[in-house]
Amino acid sequence: MTGAVERPLGALETRTAIAEGRLSAEAATEALIERIAALEPETEAWVAVDADGARAGARVLDRGPERGALHGVAIGVKDIFAANGLPWRCGSPIWANRIATFDAASVAMARAAGAIVLGKTETTEFASYKPCRTRNPAAPGRTPGGSSSGSAAAVMSGMVPLAFGTQTSGSIIRPASFCGVVGYKPSFDLIAGSGVAPLARSFDTVGLFARSVADIAFAAGALTGLDLAPENAATPPCPVGLFRSAAWEFAEPDLMAVWETFEADMSASPAILSQPVPAHFADELEGALDLHARIMAVETAEALAHEAAIAPELLSEGLVREIAAGRALSSARRHTDRLSLHRLRARALDCLDRQAVWLTPSACGAAPDWNSGTGNPAFNRTWSLLGLPACSVPLLADPAGRPIGVQVVGAMGNDAGVLAVADWLRRHFT
Amino acid sequence: MTGAVERPLGALETRTAIAEGRLSAEAATEALIERIAALEPETEAWVAVDADGARAGARVLDRGPERGALHGVAIGVKDIFAANGLPWRCGSPIWANRIATFDAASVAMARAAGAIVLGKTETTEFASYKPCRTRNPAAPGRTPGGSSSGSAAAVMSGMVPLAFGTQTSGSIIRPASFCGVVGYKPSFDLIAGSGVAPLARSFDTVGLFARSVADIAFAAGALTGLDLAPENAATPPCPVGLFRSAAWEFAEPDLMAVWETFEADMSASPAILSQPVPAHFADELEGALDLHARIMAVETAEALAHEAAIAPELLSEGLVREIAAGRALSSARRHTDRLSLHRLRARALDCLDRQAVWLTPSACGAAPDWNSGTGNPAFNRTWSLLGLPACSVPLLADPAGRPIGVQVVGAMGNDAGVLAVADWLRRHFT
Repeated sequence: MTGAVERPLGALETRTAIAEGRLSAEAATEALIERIAALEPETEAWVAVDADGARAGARVLDRGPERGALHGVAIGVKDIFAANGLPWRCGSPIWANRIATFDAASVAMARAAGAIVLGKTETTEFASYKPCRTRNPAAPGRTPGGSSSGSAAAVMSGMVPLAFGTQTSGSIIRPASFCGVVGYKPSFDLIAGSGVAPLARSFDTVGLFARSVADIAFAAGALTGLDLAPENAATPPCPVGLFRSAAWEFAEPDLMAVWETFEADMSASPAILSQPVPAHFADELEGALDLHARIMAVETAEALAHEAAIAPELLSEGLVREIAAGRALSSARRHTDRLSLHRLRARALDCLDRQAVWLTPSACGAAPDWNSGTGNPAFNRTWSLLGLPACSVPLLADPAGRPIGVQVVGAMGNDAGVLAVADWLRRHFT
Repeated sequence: MTGAVERPLGALETRTAIAEGRLSAEAATEALIERIAALEPETEAWVAVDADGARAGARVLDRGPERGALHGVAIGVKDIFAANGLPWRCGSPIWANRIATFDAASVAMARAAGAIVLGKTETTEFASYKPCRTRNPAAPGRTPGGSSSGSAAAVMSGMVPLAFGTQTSGSIIRPASFCGVVGYKPSFDLIAGSGVAPLARSFDTVGLFARSVADIAFAAGALTGLDLAPENAATPPCPVGLFRSAAWEFAEPDLMAVWETFEADMSASPAILSQPVPAHFADELEGALDLHARIMAVETAEALAHEAAIAPELLSEGLVREIAAGRALSSARRHTDRLSLHRLRARALDCLDRQAVWLTPSACGAAPDWNSGTGNPAFNRTWSLLGLPACSVPLLADPAGRPIGVQVVGAMGNDAGVLAVADWLRRHFT
């Protein structure tokens, strides 16, 4: 599929080549536009490609001094983010003709650091469950996962080195796993989320896709002011554990097989912790999947109150059911659920080792059939509920060679540790 | 000032009169439009009054079945909230010509419950510190407080029974105190905040102004699905304490005098707890004011990244300084501050009695001079940092009769207790 096109550059490679005068931002952008022309017909990852705007922006960068850490790096933006002058459709016919008139905070920060917005990527309906048209470049005939479908697919096929996504239950880690790219869901609210259409405000988290952990860490650093760059350590830079979690009951046979081999490989490492998530805290997480689903339903109903008022007939049946379920929850249930969320997050701070991380599957298996939906987020919901940082690394595959990700998760705020171990894993296993 | 106009109806009175057929939504709306015509020239609380839209909406309500709990109740909307078809200026010349093309979630929920959006109320620049033109109807020559200046003033002068505001440091409780109305800042994120221009996402909280606690509780219930209605109890419905807090060093002499009398009055009640905020937890709050200020600076810089990029010359000097201060904070400081915030909120869950509430001043004194700024939020920052529910009740006054509020604060999620005690206080003291 990609034979006719040169290997695309990553974000750091692009930025370094420009800084060293070996490449112009314009040439880097033009190469991506050509690649999109070649690959987009079979991938359908983009809602809109702003070729002219990206070229013009690149020329401005080439004429001026270095803008920032992302100088000349192109980025794809999931279509629930506002990006000034570009469509903002949220995967819904309700907003089919909307053009954003401002930048989401994360998009503005990326631009301020020198990034070039290449276009808007396909999303499921309001980042919920109804699939979009995007195909999986790494697993033909299979779903790319959702909701950040276009961002994961565009990065996998090399149409862009970097893309924004969001996760509310499993919308970054799952498509990263299915498409064979690196996906990073930061600690809750670490990257500013304003200007991004909401789904469930207690969980919605802005994150990134790239083809290397180093690219992710580098971009996330530019967006947060944090030093997240991994240090190329030869051994795991912090304690690492293995944790199947309660979602294991949803593991498919292919996942079980490769995961057992992976566990055996890892267990030989002296850095492996026996119980990264204490058993008593794992017990407290019983009911977490249901709690996440209930709060998500309530908050989805609130987030989409305007759309449900102006065009209820244009919402999918599934989303209408979700909204109805959210509205139906009693006062007492809403109150105790919200308190339970606060308590569980507080308990996580008390119970989890601040430095350690654990490895758990990114998804229930390789990508399921394209027409079966976008896959099950069971392995992601608990960490989204707790707001913990997670990174999916494409290390495993099913017997047919379809990618399966290893999910690195850490305590609240341990984004640097998660990314460092993700980077170590990639180097250790390749 | 209000002699020529009938006493305006509250939210519950309006809704009841309509439900009982004694009043139409159209007549209720018309009375408010007349009142605005009479009082707005001296108050300047409104960015835009949508008289025609409100009349048309009222007629639709009068023709149809009951829409919901707020059927026919007019609401003022702070101008950082998007309200479809109305200006959305955020107190900034950058957005002088912007018209919102959708409703913020809270506005959509209010409309779905039958509320009539009467117009947009004045705000300081992006809900930060630069004052708007609004006057204080309760204290001539003094500031109405900020940032929800127009909402507090419009409710005080009876131009609308209910208004939306937001609080990031003290932007609801302080103007409520200065203007002599009831102001309610819910538990963090209890009312959906999407579609509201952000200032500092870790603290930004949507809340309400009204002239009675019952009106506030009733409206908040309609917006959250929670049963928050106070029960007209003859004794305090939950344990109540007195707590001066570390902000007491900022108390002005007039506040000190009335507060000591208030404490003496309250201490006679058998329901009074001696130490509602445990001393060891109060010690942990040392540094809370600075922590809040630093996180606010970082997040303000991120929230306004787009505006700072497109029109830096149209930001006030104070806001430019705040953004520069936020950008200048180191990676290490950002990281430890964010962890400290999570830890303090978790500690609050552990240390504070879930049922108890405490009474503390709403502001450092009565409203200061109009041209001195919008007042000091010192008595509000700690509770905004912790995300705790707070309600200001207009119980006290300085020797010249200018209002001073009593702030009722409770543990995370105890919004019902805070509102119940606020309601009891109002009945007990009047």
